[in-house]
Amino acid sequence: MRVGIVGATGYGGAELLRLLNLHPHIKDIVLYSSSKEGMNIHESYPHLASIYEQELRTLDIGNVKNEVDVIFLATPPGVSAGVSEQLIGAGCQVVDLSGDLRLTDPTVYTKWYKREAASESVLTQAVYGLTEWNREKIRSAKLVANPGCYPTATLLGLAPLVKKQLIDVDSIIIDAKSGTSGAGRSASMMTHYSEMNENFKIYQINQHKHVPEIEQILNGWNNNVTTVTFQPHLVPMVRGIMSTMYMKASKKTSEQELRALYQQVYADEPFVRIRPMGQFPSTKEVYGSNYCDIGITYDERTERITVVSVIDNVVKGAAGQAIQNFNVMNGYEEGTGLAIVPMYP
Amino acid sequence: MRVGIVGATGYGGAELLRLLNLHPHIKDIVLYSSSKEGMNIHESYPHLASIYEQELRTLDIGNVKNEVDVIFLATPPGVSAGVSEQLIGAGCQVVDLSGDLRLTDPTVYTKWYKREAASESVLTQAVYGLTEWNREKIRSAKLVANPGCYPTATLLGLAPLVKKQLIDVDSIIIDAKSGTSGAGRSASMMTHYSEMNENFKIYQINQHKHVPEIEQILNGWNNNVTTVTFQPHLVPMVRGIMSTMYMKASKKTSEQELRALYQQVYADEPFVRIRPMGQFPSTKEVYGSNYCDIGITYDERTERITVVSVIDNVVKGAAGQAIQNFNVMNGYEEGTGLAIVPMYP
Amino acid sequence: MRVGIVGATGYGGAELLRLLNLHPHIKDIVLYSSSKEGMNIHESYPHLASIYEQELRTLDIGNVKNEVDVIFLATPPGVSAGVSEQLIGAGCQVVDLSGDLRLTDPTVYTKWYKREAASESVLTQAVYGLTEWNREKIRSAKLVANPGCYPTATLLGLAPLVKKQLIDVDSIIIDAKSGTSGAGRSASMMTHYSEMNENFKIYQINQHKHVPEIEQILNGWNNNVTTVTFQPHLVPMVRGIMSTMYMKASKKTSEQELRALYQQVYADEPFVRIRPMGQFPSTKEVYGSNYCDIGITYDERTERITVVSVIDNVVKGAAGQAIQNFNVMNGYEEGTGLAIVPMYP
Amino acid sequence: MRVGIVGATGYGGAELLRLLNLHPHIKDIVLYSSSKEGMNIHESYPHLASIYEQELRTLDIGNVKNEVDVIFLATPPGVSAGVSEQLIGAGCQVVDLSGDLRLTDPTVYTKWYKREAASESVLTQAVYGLTEWNREKIRSAKLVANPGCYPTATLLGLAPLVKKQLIDVDSIIIDAKSGTSGAGRSASMMTHYSEMNENFKIYQINQHKHVPEIEQILNGWNNNVTTVTFQPHLVPMVRGIMSTMYMKASKKTSEQELRALYQQVYADEPFVRIRPMGQFPSTKEVYGSNYCDIGITYDERTERITVVSVIDNVVKGAAGQAIQNFNVMNGYEEGTGLAIVPMYP
Repeated sequence: MRVGIVGATGYGGAELLRLLNLHPHIKDIVLYSSSKEGMNIHESYPHLASIYEQELRTLDIGNVKNEVDVIFLATPPGVSAGVSEQLIGAGCQVVDLSGDLRLTDPTVYTKWYKREAASESVLTQAVYGLTEWNREKIRSAKLVANPGCYPTATLLGLAPLVKKQLIDVDSIIIDAKSGTSGAGRSASMMTHYSEMNENFKIYQINQHKHVPEIEQILNGWNNNVTTVTFQPHLVPMVRGIMSTMYMKASKKTSEQELRALYQQVYADEPFVRIRPMGQFPSTKEVYGSNYCDIGITYDERTERITVVSVIDNVVKGAAGQAIQNFNVMNGYEEGTGLAIVPMYP
Repeated sequence: MRVGIVGATGYGGAELLRLLNLHPHIKDIVLYSSSKEGMNIHESYPHLASIYEQELRTLDIGNVKNEVDVIFLATPPGVSAGVSEQLIGAGCQVVDLSGDLRLTDPTVYTKWYKREAASESVLTQAVYGLTEWNREKIRSAKLVANPGCYPTATLLGLAPLVKKQLIDVDSIIIDAKSGTSGAGRSASMMTHYSEMNENFKIYQINQHKHVPEIEQILNGWNNNVTTVTFQPHLVPMVRGIMSTMYMKASKKTSEQELRALYQQVYADEPFVRIRPMGQFPSTKEVYGSNYCDIGITYDERTERITVVSVIDNVVKGAAGQAIQNFNVMNGYEEGTGLAIVPMYP
Repeated sequence: MRVGIVGATGYGGAELLRLLNLHPHIKDIVLYSSSKEGMNIHESYPHLASIYEQELRTLDIGNVKNEVDVIFLATPPGVSAGVSEQLIGAGCQVVDLSGDLRLTDPTVYTKWYKREAASESVLTQAVYGLTEWNREKIRSAKLVANPGCYPTATLLGLAPLVKKQLIDVDSIIIDAKSGTSGAGRSASMMTHYSEMNENFKIYQINQHKHVPEIEQILNGWNNNVTTVTFQPHLVPMVRGIMSTMYMKASKKTSEQELRALYQQVYADEPFVRIRPMGQFPSTKEVYGSNYCDIGITYDERTERITVVSVIDNVVKGAAGQAIQNFNVMNGYEEGTGLAIVPMYP
Repeated sequence: MRVGIVGATGYGGAELLRLLNLHPHIKDIVLYSSSKEGMNIHESYPHLASIYEQELRTLDIGNVKNEVDVIFLATPPGVSAGVSEQLIGAGCQVVDLSGDLRLTDPTVYTKWYKREAASESVLTQAVYGLTEWNREKIRSAKLVANPGCYPTATLLGLAPLVKKQLIDVDSIIIDAKSGTSGAGRSASMMTHYSEMNENFKIYQINQHKHVPEIEQILNGWNNNVTTVTFQPHLVPMVRGIMSTMYMKASKKTSEQELRALYQQVYADEPFVRIRPMGQFPSTKEVYGSNYCDIGITYDERTERITVVSVIDNVVKGAAGQAIQNFNVMNGYEEGTGLAIVPMYP
């Protein structure tokens, strides 16, 4: 397969390059950039020197099918809404890592993203790429909307409870923590080293764009779920997301029972690992890998369930899951190119 | 005043030394240690060289009143239960920074601390040292149980809502995050640098010793509150605690209304700062200082209140509040020696 | 005294505010900013809320003497060259924290700073503010050029050896490491958190502006010293500088002999601490304080001396030393307002 | 090939497991531990769950050849001196990651390691595994002494200059900086998070065990080189080493000339990358990979050369180079299993 990456100079693009290097079915990679055409990728990323020596090109949709078979869009908001349909029309598969095509309701998109939504015809074609729970649709998709980083960790952690209706539907609270790489490569005061190190921040309170994405999927699984409380925090580290999730159990249960459920639900999933009794994951245990590690417990005192779900936001929360979806779309074994052991320490 | 510090080689002890150096009413400081007698304090802490040159002494209760007027116990669990009564008996004031004397019910202590509780007579004399809410009792106390770091941030953040009965009493969820200094100076795998950096951990799930402390105080304020859900996390930073707290509002409210309440409740408090609309504190904004900064919001979609409270765990969560209590006990202006601007960046 | 700070929204300005808060002789502080007039300082720095509530003003030189007695210039390159003379003319004392007035030779300034130098008349009036070694001149100065952060750590570490002619004059190598706060508050790719954490960088190789400053002072002490090799590095931390310095001994010596020399030279200095045998300072041991801690050793195998000097770049390397100079200029005890214990951990 | 790892619960062992997972010629991996037999490896390293499920076994030398063909010794000092000869005798290849077999002169070993050296017969068989410069001998070796982390970065950076005699032989100064993972997994005060974060330390001044290793190899390349000055520092990060190296040029040269030399010398090396003019490597640019990136410059003012060399200490400085040597020993393409793109950011 010939692969194109649009937005190759962002962190999502760089991570695709890291991971695709291990993929046996990639013949050629073309890098597109709207702002840095002509620059060699290793001028932007010296760590890629001698591995990738491509120049960044302008995306020419009229010619794209002559160059690549699949396009990963690692672009800022607003780009994929515009180009996805043309790319599919040109005969390319598209995996969109942006948030543009995840929300099926354009009014919800406009409310949370403060910009115009993609056209209905594009939105209709886009398949939500939470691989573990949407594999069948992804298999035949031409356009995949790759999930957000927070929704990936959160939804994989909540799915068994929500689908089995084991919780009070209006009791879901998600306290999420992320490393700074999720904020991208653009320098800002928020992620200026002197402001961020030895610091822990909360941000976009009640306003994060991933709220409607989480709600949409949960509602699709159990239509009694309409809203969740979700607050994101910024951790002084580069990679990793932890979602700590709190819910009222709808009936008495136990840690054993809940863990057994999770282990059964995810038994055949190569990238979801359920922790044994008394053990909870930390973000570093999935560092650099496509795993989602989940711990679960129940407190008899409060009748509340706590689920802890961790991912590497740049891998399972972005580039890794995009490749996982690419594999499903093309009939490759789902873990192809993703059999990476987490880097520890 | 002549001051004694027991456990001077721990972080709580070192921070007392940092802060007491600015206190105008301290004449003399004596350092006690049960394991390192004879060592000079700056051998353990080179940063104190030329400032403190005391040798560590053995605590001799028979002689203690000849040496000091007030004792700060910065000791591991189990010590103050034993010595507090004798120290008071000897005529010393005592501020205990350990958790031994905070819980009034010995059975609760034994359940959560897995050790025998202090005697009833000691527990009866101990006054809980959350200065802002217990000032009158502290004024005449001989023995103050200085609050835990998590309870300090949490209780200051919850007090107005709980006391005014504005929330569903069984809906309180506290997602707490701390720097590593709270774990003390003993090296461990948990806080080994290579295991902790670029990592975010959850620990002591449903089992942290600060749970009963928080519940006891909340229950004292509003006896309908019996349990809370509290989960602590470890952040790759040294200092700082953030408690993110989630509650269901018991009736419709608004961010304005809630903020106005907080501003009014804490109007005269020198160490509590309420953030303006749309602004939430990060831990670094109180770094090295005795402040507790609080942000609050209300989400109409979910009818849920989120309160964010930050402190420096070593100052307001330990040594700073201890000195604040010491000031109250002795009739000094409460902020004496604590007028420290947070260190930023 | 009434104090003015120009450039109050930078890190140097913020640190002046932290430290001046402890200074007993400061009556009033006026904040000047050329870009943010009208803004309240705590809008830029929430950590200052309730402590400093001043609005930022425009500096009006015609009126400045009515407002303040002394001005701290915490401004980018190029500003103080322009305004210093006017401020002195208006009757203000000036402490300039920028690099504009440190180099006495305008051609050297222009070569390294790539901009026009200040006028000869200003340069002539400026006294180099390395307090420990220039105290007499500072005492009567109206205009002090506060040393750079790297030169402060480096020069205090080298002074005894250079002055006593104990080293080969062309053998001086300075390998310097700094936290990111030295780069200021402007966001940049270099100090973007995701690029800087878990990373160690070298920068401005053979080109750092502090090279000619170090050489000028060393040459003034011993005119056989003409050049040094100085390479700065960026450490993933916010505060702290370590200069590791290597020199060939000009004759056989020993660690004992060298340490004795350092202890004797700095015996009366309140802010220079010499470490005992076998102990070397780390940056955290001076964190937040005005100390410079120095370790020294000699290797018989190589006949080479290694000196290790650490400071907090924002304190002794900027705002702290500025206040130390202000004290000297005004006849206050030199450590007034600076008796701060390093914050540890 | 069947592979055995002795000391699998240390960081070197864990990294071997990460890298060997990508190696196509590994059939089976057996894990040996002298202290944790019976434990499953993922109990010690949860990040390995579902990838490696082996139990740790006791090494039985009588049976080892039935289990494995090659042994990686990732053991503390003193172990490989004892077992290497027996393992070779049993017919196994051995790659020793400890420092036991690197020094050819037992008296030098004893002086620096403060313990008895391995026997002459073992030392004679051990081939120093700096792959780029010892490939021919490694090809036929049965026992490889894998280089230390600091020597790897340092020697690759110095080789062209020393071999071509372009520098004053007694002018070599190596200022080295390492992340904490080099200190291993045992918790200690030195690497306790609260003591290490926001801190920069120097350690083992003039005494580091890697000094004689560097000197031995340099002397082998150019017998006029007898001693170097080498000082190691600890950076608040987990992975990465930078060696900044300073030398007096023996005759006038230029950056262009030096860079051309380096590019020519390392032209065919897959894991050494020379940076273009004006660019110097930072440690993160080789994070998680087997690369050594080198920058070089010359300062006409001082006639001094500065070389900057970075590696990931756990990969090229340990497990990665060990596998590189394993590949050479077995006739595999040298980069087999090591074609890993650095993880960035």
